[in-house]
Amino acid sequence: MEITQDAYGRQLLAQYNNQTATAEIIERDDGYIDTGSDPGAYFREYKQWSPLERRIIKFANGRTLDIGCGAGRHSLYLQEKGFEVTGIDNSPGAIKVCKSRGLKKALVRPIAEVDKFKPASFDTILMLGNNFGLFGSAKGGKQILKKLTRITSPEARILVGTRNPYRTSDPDHLQYHQSNIRRGRMPGQFRVRVRFGKIIGTWFDYLFVSPEEMEDVLRDSDWQVERFIGAEKTNYFAVLWKNFSAANAERERKLARRFTE
Amino acid sequence: MEITQDAYGRQLLAQYNNQTATAEIIERDDGYIDTGSDPGAYFREYKQWSPLERRIIKFANGRTLDIGCGAGRHSLYLQEKGFEVTGIDNSPGAIKVCKSRGLKKALVRPIAEVDKFKPASFDTILMLGNNFGLFGSAKGGKQILKKLTRITSPEARILVGTRNPYRTSDPDHLQYHQSNIRRGRMPGQFRVRVRFGKIIGTWFDYLFVSPEEMEDVLRDSDWQVERFIGAEKTNYFAVLWKNFSAANAERERKLARRFTE
Repeated sequence: MEITQDAYGRQLLAQYNNQTATAEIIERDDGYIDTGSDPGAYFREYKQWSPLERRIIKFANGRTLDIGCGAGRHSLYLQEKGFEVTGIDNSPGAIKVCKSRGLKKALVRPIAEVDKFKPASFDTILMLGNNFGLFGSAKGGKQILKKLTRITSPEARILVGTRNPYRTSDPDHLQYHQSNIRRGRMPGQFRVRVRFGKIIGTWFDYLFVSPEEMEDVLRDSDWQVERFIGAEKTNYFAVLWKNFSAANAERERKLARRFTE
Repeated sequence: MEITQDAYGRQLLAQYNNQTATAEIIERDDGYIDTGSDPGAYFREYKQWSPLERRIIKFANGRTLDIGCGAGRHSLYLQEKGFEVTGIDNSPGAIKVCKSRGLKKALVRPIAEVDKFKPASFDTILMLGNNFGLFGSAKGGKQILKKLTRITSPEARILVGTRNPYRTSDPDHLQYHQSNIRRGRMPGQFRVRVRFGKIIGTWFDYLFVSPEEMEDVLRDSDWQVERFIGAEKTNYFAVLWKNFSAANAERERKLARRFTE
């Protein structure tokens, strides 16, 4: 057996090279194991996306950063449309697949290092395919949202996808929520790892939130929900926009004072 | 987590009750993990079977015993056709599903206890869906074949399905074959367990053989290959029939002598 951070990338590479067409296997830290995305889901063309996903992508505008781009399905679609797109993923295997598929700007970079981009580099941030989960926790989310403020233009938007963890009646999941609460975690904070053949991924936190919890994560950040798309569904999306009403207005005033005093 | 012999049955029950439609997850003792049968495979109707499977089922004749009947797809098909069919499985969950689906004769019984049936009870034994693998080993196979001799009529047939383990180029599988050889096992003797949610099945040996190895397992038994069906494929079938030429003829002579002397 081999422990590696890139079990996920190894799987995408294998799928891309057509050596396998197996489903993704995800193991949770309570021993619960299940298949994740359907075989081939990461390679789906626009026409095969869910109706909600086809709706939210329309909000993409200008220079776009796709965080956790996977096999590049969203990035490649926008690049094809003429957008200037950069895809990042912490998986070297995923980035290799993106490049092989023709994505011009693709680099290995974890979400935590998103502030390596220059200020105001992007007008749209994509975090589709449950990638709101990459925040890992409410605290992690707040830190990353600050970094996203810096690297985006004033009118920027973040397009996020997540799963509502409460839309289940599975006793194993309900029990896991409770155990998370006891550990001081959010109920939908799933510690998981990818299994692929003999390769075992490292554990990481993947955060699933209800619409209300998403707003909690955003509270006191520079971002707020502009609109939910499919908020009543298990898998839903949200358009986030920079909030100039409160925090930013205050900051602008401070800046203005500094220059005038 | 829960360790149980019946992870497999729990999965069939969940599929039957429509609580899940996930693929089966199989873990091998070298840590290799993969999905097994497609979601729903155990419930497929005759029309959805592989062409080879539709061919071999035509050899079923008379009173039929389906060993490892799973969700009962073969048994139910034959019962529908008017056959007298008995399904056995060591999984209580599987038998529960079979009964719910309308199989009249279905009982929890492991293959090792197949000799609990009265002599000459069956004219056909079904071991489709890779159930040649239930022999577990060459030695185990020889013991069970003796029991099958006893419970079948003189003209009986066994219809078996298996997978040729050598039809792979996956280095993990090739390495596993080698490690089996070093452990004094047949290369295709896979020690596996089923994972389902938080349920972990007990380890068991599942035997995959090439056509040549199948004949080795049958050597000196009362059974021989009448014909292979798709021997050149990864998943193939064979019709076994009682061999009266050598061993049995000798036995008959001995018996005859005993009565005439």
